[in-house]
Amino acid sequence: MIKVGIIGVGTVGTSVAEILRDNADMISARAGVDIIVKSGVVRNLSKKRGLDIAFSDSVDDILDDEEIDIVVELMGGVEEPFEVVKKALHAGKAVVTANKALLAYHRYELQAIAKDIAFEYEASVAGGIPIINALRDGLSANHIESIMGIMNGTCNYMMTQMTNDGVAYDAILKESQELGYAEADPSFDVGGFDAAHKLLILASIAYGIDAKPEDILIEGIQNVTQEDISFAKEFGYAIKLLGIAKKDANEVELRVHACLISQDEMIAKIDGVMNGISVIGDKVGETLYYGPGAGGDATASAVVANIIDIARSGKSAPMLGFNRPMEGDKLTLKPTANIESKYYLRVSVTDKAGVLASITKIFESHNISVETMLQRSSDNESANLLISTHIAYERDIQAMIDELEALDFVNARPVMIRIV
Amino acid sequence: MIKVGIIGVGTVGTSVAEILRDNADMISARAGVDIIVKSGVVRNLSKKRGLDIAFSDSVDDILDDEEIDIVVELMGGVEEPFEVVKKALHAGKAVVTANKALLAYHRYELQAIAKDIAFEYEASVAGGIPIINALRDGLSANHIESIMGIMNGTCNYMMTQMTNDGVAYDAILKESQELGYAEADPSFDVGGFDAAHKLLILASIAYGIDAKPEDILIEGIQNVTQEDISFAKEFGYAIKLLGIAKKDANEVELRVHACLISQDEMIAKIDGVMNGISVIGDKVGETLYYGPGAGGDATASAVVANIIDIARSGKSAPMLGFNRPMEGDKLTLKPTANIESKYYLRVSVTDKAGVLASITKIFESHNISVETMLQRSSDNESANLLISTHIAYERDIQAMIDELEALDFVNARPVMIRIV
Repeated sequence: MIKVGIIGVGTVGTSVAEILRDNADMISARAGVDIIVKSGVVRNLSKKRGLDIAFSDSVDDILDDEEIDIVVELMGGVEEPFEVVKKALHAGKAVVTANKALLAYHRYELQAIAKDIAFEYEASVAGGIPIINALRDGLSANHIESIMGIMNGTCNYMMTQMTNDGVAYDAILKESQELGYAEADPSFDVGGFDAAHKLLILASIAYGIDAKPEDILIEGIQNVTQEDISFAKEFGYAIKLLGIAKKDANEVELRVHACLISQDEMIAKIDGVMNGISVIGDKVGETLYYGPGAGGDATASAVVANIIDIARSGKSAPMLGFNRPMEGDKLTLKPTANIESKYYLRVSVTDKAGVLASITKIFESHNISVETMLQRSSDNESANLLISTHIAYERDIQAMIDELEALDFVNARPVMIRIV
Repeated sequence: MIKVGIIGVGTVGTSVAEILRDNADMISARAGVDIIVKSGVVRNLSKKRGLDIAFSDSVDDILDDEEIDIVVELMGGVEEPFEVVKKALHAGKAVVTANKALLAYHRYELQAIAKDIAFEYEASVAGGIPIINALRDGLSANHIESIMGIMNGTCNYMMTQMTNDGVAYDAILKESQELGYAEADPSFDVGGFDAAHKLLILASIAYGIDAKPEDILIEGIQNVTQEDISFAKEFGYAIKLLGIAKKDANEVELRVHACLISQDEMIAKIDGVMNGISVIGDKVGETLYYGPGAGGDATASAVVANIIDIARSGKSAPMLGFNRPMEGDKLTLKPTANIESKYYLRVSVTDKAGVLASITKIFESHNISVETMLQRSSDNESANLLISTHIAYERDIQAMIDELEALDFVNARPVMIRIV
């Protein structure tokens, strides 16, 4: 019999205990051994959530319990769970976590500490979609050329609704908060940070690359307007917040931002709160994984899958996919300035003679070649220029945006969305 | 060092050897051990395919080689590879195969023989998509409610082209053969048998159910016409060949046939030669897996992933997902006659008074309720009735089709496509 202790019995933790109870016959048949939750740690002991397990408000009651084989960490935060899971590993207990922030900052230290002890984290990326499993085990024969994913359901819901219903950003944010899809402080989701944590985890498995959130390009969806969406539709694009990892020779670029993406791509067809991650391998080509990225039961499905894996075979793969670094293929993080992309720009200008010529000249001076340009008058005095470019360097676009913003006939800092 | 022997060095076998050679640094880093192909068995020794390995035309040269740890079976067929992999297992060698026909017939015998020896088969279903991995490991916490998949790229390519280009079945079959997507004898693909083999493998992992191709409903796409496609479009459907496994209380229905499916479903959006499999779990909800279902490199990607898994950890999960049968949840195969579905029918009738009334009466007499009916005149004397029904039993539909076919004003056996 395998005994589990759950630290943090909130929505996901409760689902984990319920699944292990309700699906016990099937899970025992699959695992080859019975798995039970022995105890849970909560901050507030009055919340029993209908579970017939021992509750405590001290993590030590699980960490010091020699009967407990697997510790499930669902407490949230970064440094506090880091200390807890380190202690669990030092006590020889396997660990399962859904904590993406913990991994975004401490995954390599944890791998070094875990050594031969299983440390699993399927639920940390894209909730119920077994993407860690697919990337680490299913695609292990491939050099990964790119990962491109809808990794945040809140943003995808908002972009979908803005596209389908024509509502403004602020209105849809409010609606998302009312539906429980967005937090009271939505900046972690809409600012791209949640997706960035997930991207960093996937990038380690794909490339063995160690980066932290502050090392990579992270932008959100806050500046997307109906005007951008209507431009996107007109030119056959959808707008999505994507996490992107891409290998280019010996460099890997990692970035999270809103994107214009062709409506023909499978990933552009993923709507609502769902997540989807496209992975291109040098041998397999494109594979894509779609499903619910959040929710108690979906997330718990991934946690319990990890528990069953550990019950079946202990540690079956190196935590981050590599038993040792590659010898020939040393990959480093590409500096943000060197990223190449096509770009879409929305520039609000005073509507007067000569403006278009001046703007065009500035594009040329930064080696940025215009692909399409639309002018839309918003009122008598100002107009929006909607411009898409051919491939350019990030450093050139950023320098040009700075220059444009300083012009007296440009009314606000131009809004830029990258095109993939 | 792990040594591999490949039995059957054709397109996929060559790709397996090339991947293990070309991606060796990365694969060693991931596996924690070097993996090399020591030898290959071919029928025709003059074909070396540019590989620097030992070749033989006798399987015994691999089976008797004590240095070989993993036997990769890519010879094709059913009984001959069955004998070969049994010998490999008896010799204590792990086996990796891409052979879906072998598994469709002998997977339970192989599981019983393999015991603690790894027997892996990721490439047997949906080529490069790690669906076995996802279903057996990633979704193991779930009771699987249904599996619905595009499991044959040839059929999906043909249906997509018929839909997009308006060409007839015979023309697109000829084109598919010229492109190499369809065999000279296409019946294995277009008749649904290839998809059925894959469905049976997935059904074992999901439900622990032992069935053979002859036990289940298998139909193909041969009767689909432009008229059906135009009806589908008009009512918001796509037409796809799907493999379907569905749990209903303690019964599981397994079937492969052309389907009308709402264009809003993710699986309906998968076009061309690509495969895609949707799995609904009781906890996770719907997840979907998309990618290339065939091709040397994509298939080899899955074979090599299995080899890496075995190199990492030997046997990490029971071959078909269950270490023992479930105790409470004894699932049996639902008889085909009891399957419930909505149906679409195309009935070619003599265009004369009273026909519609007679047909309607026959529907009623079989307890089949019509949802929509369109009449399309094909010439002065005959008309096609395009009819969709509410949910009905398979036995009632089949009996009604028999009755309709016998009527003097019905010109041919009515064509039926199930609606999902």
